[in-house]
Amino acid sequence: MKLTRRVKEILSWYESDNPGTKANLARMLMEGRLGGTGKMIILPVDQGFEHGPARSFAMNPAAYDPHYHYQLAIDAGLNAYAAPLGPMEAAAGTFAGSLPLILKMNSANSLSTQTTGPDQAVTATVADALRLGASAIGFTIYPGSEAMYDQYEEIRELSAEAKACGLATVIWSYPRGGNLTKEGELAMDVIAYAAHMAALLGAHIIKVKLPSDHLEQAEAKKVYQKHGVKIDTLADRVRHVMESSFNGRRIVVFSGGAAKGEDAVFEDARAIRDGGGNGSIIGRNAFQRSREDALALLDRLVRIYQGKE
Amino acid sequence: MKLTRRVKEILSWYESDNPGTKANLARMLMEGRLGGTGKMIILPVDQGFEHGPARSFAMNPAAYDPHYHYQLAIDAGLNAYAAPLGPMEAAAGTFAGSLPLILKMNSANSLSTQTTGPDQAVTATVADALRLGASAIGFTIYPGSEAMYDQYEEIRELSAEAKACGLATVIWSYPRGGNLTKEGELAMDVIAYAAHMAALLGAHIIKVKLPSDHLEQAEAKKVYQKHGVKIDTLADRVRHVMESSFNGRRIVVFSGGAAKGEDAVFEDARAIRDGGGNGSIIGRNAFQRSREDALALLDRLVRIYQGKE
Amino acid sequence: MKLTRRVKEILSWYESDNPGTKANLARMLMEGRLGGTGKMIILPVDQGFEHGPARSFAMNPAAYDPHYHYQLAIDAGLNAYAAPLGPMEAAAGTFAGSLPLILKMNSANSLSTQTTGPDQAVTATVADALRLGASAIGFTIYPGSEAMYDQYEEIRELSAEAKACGLATVIWSYPRGGNLTKEGELAMDVIAYAAHMAALLGAHIIKVKLPSDHLEQAEAKKVYQKHGVKIDTLADRVRHVMESSFNGRRIVVFSGGAAKGEDAVFEDARAIRDGGGNGSIIGRNAFQRSREDALALLDRLVRIYQGKE
Amino acid sequence: MKLTRRVKEILSWYESDNPGTKANLARMLMEGRLGGTGKMIILPVDQGFEHGPARSFAMNPAAYDPHYHYQLAIDAGLNAYAAPLGPMEAAAGTFAGSLPLILKMNSANSLSTQTTGPDQAVTATVADALRLGASAIGFTIYPGSEAMYDQYEEIRELSAEAKACGLATVIWSYPRGGNLTKEGELAMDVIAYAAHMAALLGAHIIKVKLPSDHLEQAEAKKVYQKHGVKIDTLADRVRHVMESSFNGRRIVVFSGGAAKGEDAVFEDARAIRDGGGNGSIIGRNAFQRSREDALALLDRLVRIYQGKE
Amino acid sequence: MKLTRRVKEILSWYESDNPGTKANLARMLMEGRLGGTGKMIILPVDQGFEHGPARSFAMNPAAYDPHYHYQLAIDAGLNAYAAPLGPMEAAAGTFAGSLPLILKMNSANSLSTQTTGPDQAVTATVADALRLGASAIGFTIYPGSEAMYDQYEEIRELSAEAKACGLATVIWSYPRGGNLTKEGELAMDVIAYAAHMAALLGAHIIKVKLPSDHLEQAEAKKVYQKHGVKIDTLADRVRHVMESSFNGRRIVVFSGGAAKGEDAVFEDARAIRDGGGNGSIIGRNAFQRSREDALALLDRLVRIYQGKE
Repeated sequence: MKLTRRVKEILSWYESDNPGTKANLARMLMEGRLGGTGKMIILPVDQGFEHGPARSFAMNPAAYDPHYHYQLAIDAGLNAYAAPLGPMEAAAGTFAGSLPLILKMNSANSLSTQTTGPDQAVTATVADALRLGASAIGFTIYPGSEAMYDQYEEIRELSAEAKACGLATVIWSYPRGGNLTKEGELAMDVIAYAAHMAALLGAHIIKVKLPSDHLEQAEAKKVYQKHGVKIDTLADRVRHVMESSFNGRRIVVFSGGAAKGEDAVFEDARAIRDGGGNGSIIGRNAFQRSREDALALLDRLVRIYQGKE
Repeated sequence: MKLTRRVKEILSWYESDNPGTKANLARMLMEGRLGGTGKMIILPVDQGFEHGPARSFAMNPAAYDPHYHYQLAIDAGLNAYAAPLGPMEAAAGTFAGSLPLILKMNSANSLSTQTTGPDQAVTATVADALRLGASAIGFTIYPGSEAMYDQYEEIRELSAEAKACGLATVIWSYPRGGNLTKEGELAMDVIAYAAHMAALLGAHIIKVKLPSDHLEQAEAKKVYQKHGVKIDTLADRVRHVMESSFNGRRIVVFSGGAAKGEDAVFEDARAIRDGGGNGSIIGRNAFQRSREDALALLDRLVRIYQGKE
Repeated sequence: MKLTRRVKEILSWYESDNPGTKANLARMLMEGRLGGTGKMIILPVDQGFEHGPARSFAMNPAAYDPHYHYQLAIDAGLNAYAAPLGPMEAAAGTFAGSLPLILKMNSANSLSTQTTGPDQAVTATVADALRLGASAIGFTIYPGSEAMYDQYEEIRELSAEAKACGLATVIWSYPRGGNLTKEGELAMDVIAYAAHMAALLGAHIIKVKLPSDHLEQAEAKKVYQKHGVKIDTLADRVRHVMESSFNGRRIVVFSGGAAKGEDAVFEDARAIRDGGGNGSIIGRNAFQRSREDALALLDRLVRIYQGKE
Repeated sequence: MKLTRRVKEILSWYESDNPGTKANLARMLMEGRLGGTGKMIILPVDQGFEHGPARSFAMNPAAYDPHYHYQLAIDAGLNAYAAPLGPMEAAAGTFAGSLPLILKMNSANSLSTQTTGPDQAVTATVADALRLGASAIGFTIYPGSEAMYDQYEEIRELSAEAKACGLATVIWSYPRGGNLTKEGELAMDVIAYAAHMAALLGAHIIKVKLPSDHLEQAEAKKVYQKHGVKIDTLADRVRHVMESSFNGRRIVVFSGGAAKGEDAVFEDARAIRDGGGNGSIIGRNAFQRSREDALALLDRLVRIYQGKE
Repeated sequence: MKLTRRVKEILSWYESDNPGTKANLARMLMEGRLGGTGKMIILPVDQGFEHGPARSFAMNPAAYDPHYHYQLAIDAGLNAYAAPLGPMEAAAGTFAGSLPLILKMNSANSLSTQTTGPDQAVTATVADALRLGASAIGFTIYPGSEAMYDQYEEIRELSAEAKACGLATVIWSYPRGGNLTKEGELAMDVIAYAAHMAALLGAHIIKVKLPSDHLEQAEAKKVYQKHGVKIDTLADRVRHVMESSFNGRRIVVFSGGAAKGEDAVFEDARAIRDGGGNGSIIGRNAFQRSREDALALLDRLVRIYQGKE
């Protein structure tokens, strides 16, 4: 498969990684309809852990079946599919070689009382990722939570092992817990900080939520204002996240959160594209629609990242 | 032993597992009077840990003897017998090859003060399962408990080791602790969630309690109502649990809980059958009756799963 | 599965083995049409290594396909199927749970010049046996060969590991090499010696060739004559092999060697039965016939061991 | 990447392998201009070890550069590139993700006096394969050589490790040494035997030389003649090799040996295609021509396997 | 330290190596009076193992002291110093940080009877290299010797470990033993082959002797003549060695062998320089002269590589 110039440029940023890890990054960047553009759309299906089955799938019961998501990602021409151990095992044989996989290594759930702050359980191993043919491991950190430092130490171990085996590391960085307000979880300074910490921890691909123009931390606010960091439009804010991710030397994908109207999804994508972001990680907005609607929505998303809309 | 078409179909769901694990699943599915139907009745005897000997066996003193339970399971034509290390060691030689065994790997007991919420001790190893000739390991998780994440990490390690050795994994998923109300432990949304999490963790066989029509979590309740998830009858609720277990791609068996009247047991079984569940895991309702009564009860249960009653 | 009294008796001889190994022995003894009788017919297909594909399968080309042999063993109602790593991998998924398997751990081939005497390469591991769901490992020794002591040390390691994991050990004991004459390889004293050494090495199941009435070793000959060891008929000789195998406390199966006339095969089986042997391990005489002929032959063999012919 | 029906069929033969290994087989089968057809052309460059640099590259000095071969394989649209550790390291960063790689694990060289018969040194590890992003390990065995059994034991260990990590195993099976005549190294019976042994050892992909119609072994000759095994044309002989490789359940690619005329190369490929072989592994006939000539030759080879010539 | 463009270019060839290994290569390339030019002079002192102390040092008794050599290398402005474990331990504290070190990992000695051909003992570990602050490990192979394959497997292990720890690997490749004539050890084809095999084995830096114009192997001779490989002058031959080392993608340094006249040493160096070689590894010709003479000689050598003479 001849890599495009853009993909080669992106790979050149990962200059301390071995060829195995680069090859797995290349696989994700070259797959699907956005293959070769440096843009990515990833389908993550870990809602089941987070919210339980009915809240995840009752609106589209076909999605209870793990095979459904693989097929959706393939038919929509996406770049990769992310899931926890169980559903990956339930379909990895049938779809072996059909799509790059990201094995989600830790998961939280909403039955947790989280008295010591938000945390997750590590529910898979790097050996699982290898035997299931995954290209990357995925791991969630909660910057702000009391469990944060434990999580950082967990991903340090998992990521070191993954890199030695030629796998890539994707970090979901979700500010949460501690002194953060609810509004603060999406604040510009906090999201930029979260992306930066994922990069500092050695992530190859970073996933954050789209930031608002709120500034949460007083010290940070002063700096943003003094130096006129531009954060007015969503595209500006995406640009600042990319800047915060080693000046664009790390792939960053953005999630849109809860299911919402199509237009909002498209507007987000255009801002991500215009701000220089690498793409979307879009779960509920895909699998909580009917397959037909999801394919239509993903088709338009692809076209937006292709610059056609 | 020629596998039936139904058993082959069930095995096909476990597409990432090695032939050894599939063979052990087949052994359980082909054993006893329900062998080949895809239905299962499992006899679990781990009450001793949970409630102590007298509360477990004083009403049927023959049951103090570990040999009693093996013989009961064999004579009743059940699919498998589950027990902790000690009683398995006390009878596994005599009954070697007579019945598929599930070695229960962790256990709680009622002397525990559980100040940090419900938990269990891991009391056996995968090497024990191999030397005792078990077909599977069994493990209890308490979704909701503060110990939940630790338990998820324990089963991750045990299950990975078991799968590599060709053993199957059975997860007992019992919501308990945290913010759950007593009623919530059996709530429809919570039981479906518990089954789903066991599947996400990589269980081959899932054991949950039969759910009530109560809905515990406010967010979930909205979804059930909005999307009209059918949970009126027990069969409906079983169907929803199966749906929540990878749309039926995982074996789910249901427990009836405390000893109760025969008719209630039969009614439960008919609902499990009609809702597409795989069967019953029936402990106290079997061994806390006299052997004669237990055999009669189990005979009728078998007949119900055979569709004869 | 209720074990028969006879199978329980046989299991009682293996009194130092753990329940896992006993369960695997029980599986082989309870399988198929001879299940429960204490008699066994095993289908071994390792001819490919020994003689190459055409000499093994050209007379029945369907047998080039590894699936063929599994199906033949199942349809004929045999007790177990033995094969090397590759063909076991090529069919173990499809037939998982359908038949007890013996993973052949070492193999010789006829391209070998064997300048240092007959030997074999170890081509599989105990971990392979577990992941493929085998009930036993199989290993060939060449008593008499210069490689003999190395082989004994190899099986010591493999067998110890297998027993700890609950697997059984089958030893093919073929006198060969050293000072043995061609006639001596089948001599009564030598075959009895070979069976005895397999027992001494810790085999659960011993496989030897049917002995002739030749006596090879001068010292042994004196003893046989002085003490009137009865070796006139084939049944007498089988009886002496059983006696040499811990007085019948070890399962011994006999091979018939190259493909030959049906009547000779039946005559051998009657002698094995009448002499108290446990059964036949029959490869070329099964798979080098057409499937139809093989099924007919195996049906009569089964009937002979059932005492019906 | 949507797999073709044919590739899915081929993957189904590897029923005991984990999804990781299947995915790597799929990568090789889906790559390049033959991607999806079930046919393969592999470029192996291990001549340097075997014959030294000048004999390998002096006729096309551009080929001294390891990058040359990667680029040739990519530009010709081949399925995979095979090389030893050093040249793979020298180019795996630049071409990460551009082409499936097979890390050649052992190598012989012509300075060896081979007083104990042909052998090879193991010069790479499975960890190297992972860090370099290889899809498979490659290993040469010399059936017939005195080192044969040692080699079988080496590949057993390497292959078990590779399979657990989701890598595929390619075995180069070259009869050589012992009592084999020079003519015998290419004899029909010997090549079929060599392919069969690679399959027995657990190879996913087998590489043998194209056989002549010579029959080397007296015992085999009788069988071929008696059963009328058809070996008249090269296509017949390829068909018999496929039959000997688990009745076509294993991928087999054929090498053409020393550089030769184009027409001979094309004739070989047509016979491989018509006999049901999976393709060619073509080294010297590719890189010992000028790049232009090599691309022209490979283009026609591709077209032959596409059935266009 | 700003690396020169030339050093950056050289580092780019090591594209699969981690930054640690690249940094150690850079240290050696940037050290001393040739620092930054891409040329190197290395002082190796392993004569003591090879020839004993008096034959090594009696002509310049100051050289019995390990400190002498460090100081000589530093004062002469060389790139690196290579020695076995003992002498490195005897001076590494005093000179820590003063000079890049290459820990020689294996050594032969002249008391050996070498009945199975030339071999060496491995006398140090990668852990030693790390604790002593070495930049690289050094290892000798004897292509042609019966011990060759064992040596290749030793360096495979040591090199993999060294690379993982960020160390570089230097291979001394000395054809010797087997069927090689004494003249053949320096033959053009054999030296090119030796350099090529070191590259194939994954060496970062290759050390060979300067080749003569003799061609040893009949098959190679034909190729050299047919394709007109230019080997008339020493510079031509150096150029062919570089070509054989991945077309110049590997650093190659040349040794001059036994102590000889100054003019011969300078002539060699000019040929190495003109043929594109990377430099000299010069032991006896340095330390078997008085310090004053050695410094004068090394000064002129440096000037030759600087293109000033």
